[in-house]
Amino acid sequence: MTTDYQLVIIGGGPAGLTAGLYAARAKLRVLLLEKGIHGGQITVTDWIDNYPGFPDGLSGFDLADKMAAQAARFDLETKNANVVSLDLAGPVKKINLEDGLQLTSQTVVIATGARPTQLGIPGETELIGKGVSYCATCDAPFYRNLEISVIGGGNTAVQEAIHLTKFASKVTVIHRRDQLRATKVIQEKAFANDRIEFIWDTVVTEILGDKEVEAIALQNKNGKKSTLAVQGVFVLIGVRPNNEVLPLDQLEHKNGFIVTDKEMRTSAPGVMAAGDICWKEVRQVVNAAGEGAVATLAAERYLEEPSRKE
Amino acid sequence: MTTDYQLVIIGGGPAGLTAGLYAARAKLRVLLLEKGIHGGQITVTDWIDNYPGFPDGLSGFDLADKMAAQAARFDLETKNANVVSLDLAGPVKKINLEDGLQLTSQTVVIATGARPTQLGIPGETELIGKGVSYCATCDAPFYRNLEISVIGGGNTAVQEAIHLTKFASKVTVIHRRDQLRATKVIQEKAFANDRIEFIWDTVVTEILGDKEVEAIALQNKNGKKSTLAVQGVFVLIGVRPNNEVLPLDQLEHKNGFIVTDKEMRTSAPGVMAAGDICWKEVRQVVNAAGEGAVATLAAERYLEEPSRKE
Repeated sequence: MTTDYQLVIIGGGPAGLTAGLYAARAKLRVLLLEKGIHGGQITVTDWIDNYPGFPDGLSGFDLADKMAAQAARFDLETKNANVVSLDLAGPVKKINLEDGLQLTSQTVVIATGARPTQLGIPGETELIGKGVSYCATCDAPFYRNLEISVIGGGNTAVQEAIHLTKFASKVTVIHRRDQLRATKVIQEKAFANDRIEFIWDTVVTEILGDKEVEAIALQNKNGKKSTLAVQGVFVLIGVRPNNEVLPLDQLEHKNGFIVTDKEMRTSAPGVMAAGDICWKEVRQVVNAAGEGAVATLAAERYLEEPSRKE
Repeated sequence: MTTDYQLVIIGGGPAGLTAGLYAARAKLRVLLLEKGIHGGQITVTDWIDNYPGFPDGLSGFDLADKMAAQAARFDLETKNANVVSLDLAGPVKKINLEDGLQLTSQTVVIATGARPTQLGIPGETELIGKGVSYCATCDAPFYRNLEISVIGGGNTAVQEAIHLTKFASKVTVIHRRDQLRATKVIQEKAFANDRIEFIWDTVVTEILGDKEVEAIALQNKNGKKSTLAVQGVFVLIGVRPNNEVLPLDQLEHKNGFIVTDKEMRTSAPGVMAAGDICWKEVRQVVNAAGEGAVATLAAERYLEEPSRKE
């Protein structure tokens, strides 16, 4: 079988870059496709304290840069391109690019990532990493003794509100309905926690602050407006898979996230997935990177399978 | 339930240190037990080029140091101690130390690691990282245009011998029997590769070299001795789980490696495993670290389960 590549990696975040590093070091004919700049979500992450190996933490941009430089050192071929569609059935995988080019590859690692659901209000994007966060596990310790708010009413939002009280002096949960969606036991824990307050039937209309978050503008269901002074806003209303170009009819998925086994193999032979696009509980930089390595090594084993010929 | 700890982590390699980093940042009552120095296997790894984030690579010792310093920054409590036995059945996990102390914990992360099977011959340990390697995925690119040998005859040994020919100018496979254990198709690939030579019915009796590997001393089944000049020796005769203190009757395992689900939960409720001790295909620093993070977050979810009370 002659194809352009042995492996095409789609996405240049930590998972894709690590998959690329491993593939380049293994001298595969590999191409990494990235539609924007390297790094994926982490490039908009102000400071990362929990990627192991950096005792003082580092900026997401810096980490992305280092990962890209490392892959480049081993001559990873990368291309800035928008993928418009994929055909992953059969032994030759086809990757169609926006410019009309069709690439072929024997294996594919899907590392397109996910994105937090945003509120879509003024001030939100501008203040990411400056008081606006989408990940309590990542950022909670930055809010020691500060007053913050959590937006949302599901399990994640309420659990993380409880978690955040280990750090913040006060956590105000703002929910657009008059009751939480979170399971009863978690609700009870939150109600019993005297550092947590609730504002019901209310939406956030704007995040206020010049260089950092200073307050949020609220509006309740009767149209009444108010302002709440906070130094942090955790928007915890869900995460969405970046699956727009993926052929979901060819891949087992749950809620649009790709299902893999422990070796990061999807339901389509020769197709692996890694990082936040996968159906899983934990979405952190370090396990995304780990999965990238595992995915490439699974691709290598697939390429060596007896029944396959190049 | 009152226990000494919410989480005890056993082992201070990349998996354990990352589990500890996540647990300390989450403000769990956590203790990391390590019998030697921090870092596990990586402290004897001369140079690591494939841990993402370090474009020029770094020494294993240095990486271990950085990981430990990062966990310490978040006040991870650690203790140098030999665990002699564990009781992981029931809601209170018991950890018995050599000095007679018994610790109790609600959850445990097992991160005791694994070790490559060594030849156990003179020169081997002394020259680790100086030409002696147990991991082709990690170290192959360091042997560009050099002559090396691979010790072993199983699938891993023969596959890695083929892989190593992408870098080394010549690879001599030394096997103690007169035929390989590797599957037929892999054997055929190796036999067809003109950079690979085989020496049969022969064992390595010593690894020679002052500061770096220079040669290996061989002895065939008839007692005939010889020397082969090589600049690298890949010892690929298996990997052994560090499971001596684990209660294997309480944990599902395969060949002594602990079986987990994708969230790193073992068959024992409240017990997670991470890193090389796990039953899996890929044993690299970055996926060990990723699993450590996932294991701690699984422990947190377990601690929050409705049916549990502290």
